[in-house]
Amino acid sequence: MGTTAREASGAARLAAPGEGISAEELQLAARNHAMPLEALRYDVTPAGLHYLLIHFDIPYLDESTHTLSIDGLVRRPLSVDLAQLRGRPRQTHRVTLECAGNGRALLQPRPVSQPWLSEAVGTAEWTGTSLAALLDEAGVAPGAHDVVFTGADHGIERGVEQDYQRGLPLAEAMREDVIVAYEMNGQPLLPQHGAPLRLIVPGWYGMAQVKWLTNVTVLDREFDGYQNAVAYRLRGDAEDPGVPVTRMQPRALVRPPGFPDFMSRTRVVKAGVSTVEGRAWSGFGAVTAVEVTADGGGSWHPAQLGPVAGPYAWRGWSWRWEAAPGRAVLGARATDETGRVQPVQAEWNRGGFANNGVQQVECVVVD
Amino acid sequence: MGTTAREASGAARLAAPGEGISAEELQLAARNHAMPLEALRYDVTPAGLHYLLIHFDIPYLDESTHTLSIDGLVRRPLSVDLAQLRGRPRQTHRVTLECAGNGRALLQPRPVSQPWLSEAVGTAEWTGTSLAALLDEAGVAPGAHDVVFTGADHGIERGVEQDYQRGLPLAEAMREDVIVAYEMNGQPLLPQHGAPLRLIVPGWYGMAQVKWLTNVTVLDREFDGYQNAVAYRLRGDAEDPGVPVTRMQPRALVRPPGFPDFMSRTRVVKAGVSTVEGRAWSGFGAVTAVEVTADGGGSWHPAQLGPVAGPYAWRGWSWRWEAAPGRAVLGARATDETGRVQPVQAEWNRGGFANNGVQQVECVVVD
Repeated sequence: MGTTAREASGAARLAAPGEGISAEELQLAARNHAMPLEALRYDVTPAGLHYLLIHFDIPYLDESTHTLSIDGLVRRPLSVDLAQLRGRPRQTHRVTLECAGNGRALLQPRPVSQPWLSEAVGTAEWTGTSLAALLDEAGVAPGAHDVVFTGADHGIERGVEQDYQRGLPLAEAMREDVIVAYEMNGQPLLPQHGAPLRLIVPGWYGMAQVKWLTNVTVLDREFDGYQNAVAYRLRGDAEDPGVPVTRMQPRALVRPPGFPDFMSRTRVVKAGVSTVEGRAWSGFGAVTAVEVTADGGGSWHPAQLGPVAGPYAWRGWSWRWEAAPGRAVLGARATDETGRVQPVQAEWNRGGFANNGVQQVECVVVD
Repeated sequence: MGTTAREASGAARLAAPGEGISAEELQLAARNHAMPLEALRYDVTPAGLHYLLIHFDIPYLDESTHTLSIDGLVRRPLSVDLAQLRGRPRQTHRVTLECAGNGRALLQPRPVSQPWLSEAVGTAEWTGTSLAALLDEAGVAPGAHDVVFTGADHGIERGVEQDYQRGLPLAEAMREDVIVAYEMNGQPLLPQHGAPLRLIVPGWYGMAQVKWLTNVTVLDREFDGYQNAVAYRLRGDAEDPGVPVTRMQPRALVRPPGFPDFMSRTRVVKAGVSTVEGRAWSGFGAVTAVEVTADGGGSWHPAQLGPVAGPYAWRGWSWRWEAAPGRAVLGARATDETGRVQPVQAEWNRGGFANNGVQQVECVVVD
């Protein structure tokens, strides 16, 4: 038997107790970057600071010839190019995106994959055109169930060769605010953010926001491709079929105050009164409360909330801190309008998804 | 005695044999990202794909009020704002920048710091105005020795609180092609690349390219600040005073062919003839040869060189590969016009600097 592509690919595993980050995890961390936490300063994250998770390689697509196909269970399959998409009605939404694996490397035991800490997030103004209008034009036929989005990035993952594909239930795909986006912050998409086209599904974790979009395919059944049926599921163990990862759980992040130590990133903060600020979001609804701790969760204090910047963008918050000399551990937890409250420690799951446990910002408070 | 800032900061150390990447190293890898290797496709690296190393936090500077001071051993200290700098003669240079710590995490034993693999590099078109002309206007006084560049990023490193500062010998600072840059690829600098002003010293490693530039100070002696006297030095051990890190050693990188496995990044490549491409650079002079290996260094083959894009930009190269089914390990090594040849394995040093050992791109070649 010859050499096969599967030889490039290993099985999923959990890190052993005390096992440091592996060379493979480091390779992923070097390419897929988080948002430096000081960028919580910005309402809209500048280019290059927004988090990035790319399963395979960033593909190169020629914008002048690229087309998007709408096919599958539709009456009139469509193929549209960039000029046609740009000619359709525009929508712009300010959307906070977070990787479903955010917080994974903080779990015990640690699922071995992209080793995110707390900051795989970013907020951008995405401009594009309505997906529902395109699907309406193609004429979704009766019996439609899921819509599958195919990206041009190609690779192998846990032995399965694939173009990156994710399915959405038809009702989500037909939401008014789901767009095929061609601009980010008023500029054409950058290569790493999906140029020339990507999907934006406000409220959902990043795995739904398919980049380098080539095909939109309507199915008469639930999509059973790798990224829906195997990868992005909340499971208790490897045998558990689990449930799909969907919307972002509520989370608040603290913008680290003072200045950092280079290696430990521990913050040095001057004693006295200062304002601690941050952002909070939820994919289920508006953030209605943020509480802050400066003693690692021993006591909690209500934060002042900033203005709402739309249904799917993070919300600023601030808290007046009277810092006494010594050690402090800052964190914050968000509550949304559906009553979901961010836990101090999230429930463990096999894939390390949706870990919205409270951040821990180590501080040394000096006179 | 009260709490002091030094409590946030630990001593430099080497990783123990077999020690995985630590949580502290991972924190740095999550913020300071490398260039995804597929971006070797681009002559000029798109925004957000260029490598990034930030010692402390990205500071926020108000472009409308920011000024640059030229002071120290000069006859007429100057303070110039952005509008004045933009009004001076412009220069644009295509420059490849590489972090001095590139390759650190591949060393045995591993110095514990920013854990770079092979790809802390990027090439941009930097636009700004001559530093020498500014120094001439200020009138460098007799006895000048070093010029110190101060950035606005502030923190503590190995117990030393500091603004990031690096000194250059006067002769380097007076080179015609050293600029105070305010644009990258035709756009105002991004926050993470030094907005609104940074230094560009073509040919030198990244530590010389001071970002968020606030002061240019002429000294009558060698600068003995932390980043010159302690951090960026090639030392055999912690007691060795060592020599300063200066220009980039020659290095070639392979653009990984085929497609990757998600976790291992091992490449899957189709057997047969294909073209392997990459880039090569040296801070000492033009690249004059690149050799390629497909058997992990067992045999070497001359690559075809692409056009020269200026004295300080990487040079493209290509090689015709007849890939047979099985395992292959690709790598490339560069030679420059000064006769410097990239080693298969670089000499170890305590800080993990200038590791230009040959890259290893693991491939599975399939029928």
